[in-house]
Amino acid sequence: MAKTNPGRFFEDYHIGQVIAHAVPRTVGEGERALYHALYPARHALYSSDEFARDCGLEGSPLDDLAAFHVVFGKTVPDVSLNAVANLGYAEGRWLKPVFPGDTLRSLSEVIGLKQNSNGKTGVVWVRTRGINQMGETVMDYVRWVMVRKRDIDAPAPETVVPELKKVLAPSDLVIPEGLDFSNYDFTLAGEPHRWGDYEVGETIDHVDGVTVEEAEHMMATRLWQNTAKVHFDLTFRPEGRLIYGGHVISMARALSFNGLANAQMIVGLNGGAHANPCFSGLTIKAWSEVLDKAETSAPGVGAIRLRLVATKGGEPFQLRGEDGKYNKDVLLDLDYWALMPM
Amino acid sequence: MAKTNPGRFFEDYHIGQVIAHAVPRTVGEGERALYHALYPARHALYSSDEFARDCGLEGSPLDDLAAFHVVFGKTVPDVSLNAVANLGYAEGRWLKPVFPGDTLRSLSEVIGLKQNSNGKTGVVWVRTRGINQMGETVMDYVRWVMVRKRDIDAPAPETVVPELKKVLAPSDLVIPEGLDFSNYDFTLAGEPHRWGDYEVGETIDHVDGVTVEEAEHMMATRLWQNTAKVHFDLTFRPEGRLIYGGHVISMARALSFNGLANAQMIVGLNGGAHANPCFSGLTIKAWSEVLDKAETSAPGVGAIRLRLVATKGGEPFQLRGEDGKYNKDVLLDLDYWALMPM
Amino acid sequence: MAKTNPGRFFEDYHIGQVIAHAVPRTVGEGERALYHALYPARHALYSSDEFARDCGLEGSPLDDLAAFHVVFGKTVPDVSLNAVANLGYAEGRWLKPVFPGDTLRSLSEVIGLKQNSNGKTGVVWVRTRGINQMGETVMDYVRWVMVRKRDIDAPAPETVVPELKKVLAPSDLVIPEGLDFSNYDFTLAGEPHRWGDYEVGETIDHVDGVTVEEAEHMMATRLWQNTAKVHFDLTFRPEGRLIYGGHVISMARALSFNGLANAQMIVGLNGGAHANPCFSGLTIKAWSEVLDKAETSAPGVGAIRLRLVATKGGEPFQLRGEDGKYNKDVLLDLDYWALMPM
Repeated sequence: MAKTNPGRFFEDYHIGQVIAHAVPRTVGEGERALYHALYPARHALYSSDEFARDCGLEGSPLDDLAAFHVVFGKTVPDVSLNAVANLGYAEGRWLKPVFPGDTLRSLSEVIGLKQNSNGKTGVVWVRTRGINQMGETVMDYVRWVMVRKRDIDAPAPETVVPELKKVLAPSDLVIPEGLDFSNYDFTLAGEPHRWGDYEVGETIDHVDGVTVEEAEHMMATRLWQNTAKVHFDLTFRPEGRLIYGGHVISMARALSFNGLANAQMIVGLNGGAHANPCFSGLTIKAWSEVLDKAETSAPGVGAIRLRLVATKGGEPFQLRGEDGKYNKDVLLDLDYWALMPM
Repeated sequence: MAKTNPGRFFEDYHIGQVIAHAVPRTVGEGERALYHALYPARHALYSSDEFARDCGLEGSPLDDLAAFHVVFGKTVPDVSLNAVANLGYAEGRWLKPVFPGDTLRSLSEVIGLKQNSNGKTGVVWVRTRGINQMGETVMDYVRWVMVRKRDIDAPAPETVVPELKKVLAPSDLVIPEGLDFSNYDFTLAGEPHRWGDYEVGETIDHVDGVTVEEAEHMMATRLWQNTAKVHFDLTFRPEGRLIYGGHVISMARALSFNGLANAQMIVGLNGGAHANPCFSGLTIKAWSEVLDKAETSAPGVGAIRLRLVATKGGEPFQLRGEDGKYNKDVLLDLDYWALMPM
Repeated sequence: MAKTNPGRFFEDYHIGQVIAHAVPRTVGEGERALYHALYPARHALYSSDEFARDCGLEGSPLDDLAAFHVVFGKTVPDVSLNAVANLGYAEGRWLKPVFPGDTLRSLSEVIGLKQNSNGKTGVVWVRTRGINQMGETVMDYVRWVMVRKRDIDAPAPETVVPELKKVLAPSDLVIPEGLDFSNYDFTLAGEPHRWGDYEVGETIDHVDGVTVEEAEHMMATRLWQNTAKVHFDLTFRPEGRLIYGGHVISMARALSFNGLANAQMIVGLNGGAHANPCFSGLTIKAWSEVLDKAETSAPGVGAIRLRLVATKGGEPFQLRGEDGKYNKDVLLDLDYWALMPM
């Protein structure tokens, strides 16, 4: 009996199937420090326990994207080991901040299946939940991937395509308990711009750039226990290791501090596309566009919907060509909700 | 008076000599996170405090190999600064798990000496103990190295070659207090294979590979305060920095998760050889062979003796040529005992 | 309204101006572990909680230079984003050790201004304080930089050149409360040389070297939230990323363990010059010169004033040419006070 994990193939999934992913992980101060070493992360709420307490939290949580990476990483051996493509994200919500000492595990439910017309692959939709040691769901999101079939002759399952929201409504967003931006310290946070200073349609060039290195993206990807071969093994992919898409997300989000220092907490992920692959030696830059704004019930807290685009060159604010396709310099197009002082 | 450390030469050792090594080190959550960033480590007991508690421990210990590296690193300035070769390990035992907050120091006793026939070098055997802040020995092992003489005319010491066990007997192994695998969660651990599923003689190709980078192996080696020049200084070794053998051990052990996810705790090191040097740019892969199995007195806990081989290419399961020498692609041949749920 | 930070220009500073820098930062065990991974740091007081307690402290503090880097990094967006050159440091004092869990912020006061004769740039002197969560100043230092003018026609400010001490007097140094080296363990510390064994004028070649890598200096620089473009973005500086001067300081200080293992705590920074830029691929070595010695009021504690020189090649102890200029191989010339057991 072969002992290693061959991954699941398309015909191994069925609607309603629940997959409990290995390996649980206790996150702590070490992960926080490493996040600051790997990304130019400066959002004050995730940098200072004092600042976070002044905003009504018990302390500085793990970066929201780090929590996402930990939850996501666990799903790789079960969901995307035989994936041909990572097709999309939707309905991502951060439900509770993750604090040092918390232990996370992940659980996915198959909510959609559609065999492709070529008969060789199919699309699998899963809703994944990250769960802490108290059994509380700290985040959930839907992801869909194209997966190979093991046996081309296996019968196609009944097609189920889940209805997913294109965009989370403001009422879908969960504001962390106790969050209060009434006494927000804009000086310590690094920028004076508040929720009211941003207009829908406004674009921001985040100016800074980082040329990425092999050792860094591998350390990041391993830290989230994401084991996909393409990120690590040059004999498997001699043309260059493919950088984990989440590394690009975190890099772009950290770069967006310059202009969006007060977009403190990420609470919703509406969608995202890894438009082009990223390799070491490329220089990641970022720009944002304000897509929407909404009030919330928490004191002093506004919600802002942002498009975050990571590029590897070219001018900012160029997303797609006339053919509707992403420009070749675009690495990432992410649509998310953040919380900001009003 | 020269202030820098010239290291010890062969004639500086004598039987019974006890060397207290500098520098004590407090290990914590940071070391744990870095271990996960540097190696694709996924064994659940070292990843999750909750999982470790469910196995009867007070929390998730520092990886056994990280504990070994910390203890080993301290011996380098006293034992191997003038070493020509690292010849072997034997009788290595993990006696107590190391937890975040523990402070480790190392103590070595010279137990063997043998001048080589060329009169220029000699072999030194030391038994090293890692000791925590309570004065408890957390691990011990024997290591022997070939060391240069300072003065070729110095008289040869009486030859003492210690009798060392080729393999630790199951009764030599120390099971951590409280360890209990009766309620072991195979789903969270990542694989269903229990002690009973492995057969002596069985071989496992761990499939995954990691192409190693300079920044990573240097960070790892420094983390253990191992200061040997060959690992860091390209002017000293222009043909390439030699990667610390322990980096290869940890990489191979982490890769062995895929097929041996339940070989949770390392409790014995029977022997080990660094068959060929490792340099950055090489891709480390690993395979294992089951050498032996034994029951233990702890509930649900079995012992498994494994050969762990790291390679830089070639097919798995090829260890030695017809001449009995290691194949050129073999980096490491390690013989250890691990604990596994029955 | 542009949302990104353009940095301050020369005419934006005025004497007496106080700048509260963003972003506060809680430091912890993760930063300590990363410091040990990035530098070959071995001073026992910063490695072992037990050793630090035996010296009268509550535990092992964050490395003094790490504390400096955190405080310094915060000033970059406000002080040196448009700097042409980092001209010098003076009157740096470590006033309180920083412990895991402390939160640091920085505050600078403009104490000097002098427009250059070319009318395009000027020199700005700031005194920066690092402040912990109790409002205590943990360190302060003066730094001066050459900054571009935004508008060449802006009027020159009145010239104010602060009087700065060339060297801190021993009475200026603040000994950490409780520090006591009477029972100092030289064996655990790694070297037998005490304060009395060093003579003014003595020079020490620290022997070891480290060839620096891109990933490492970027991780270090980000960890201190230093965002200067030149360190990260190869499209901005295609001839090579400039390595943060503080990375060279920490590397040289860590290398100086070999010969100065007992120069445990840094308490004063008299001055420092980054003589030549540092790039990845260079090998950093270090040598020291004893400049002065002084007794202190703390039990068993002596002060030693050291010149620490980092080089990228050449012979040790060669600082300047006949023209008085730094040799091309000199990277750093640092003048500091450390505390040592008597």
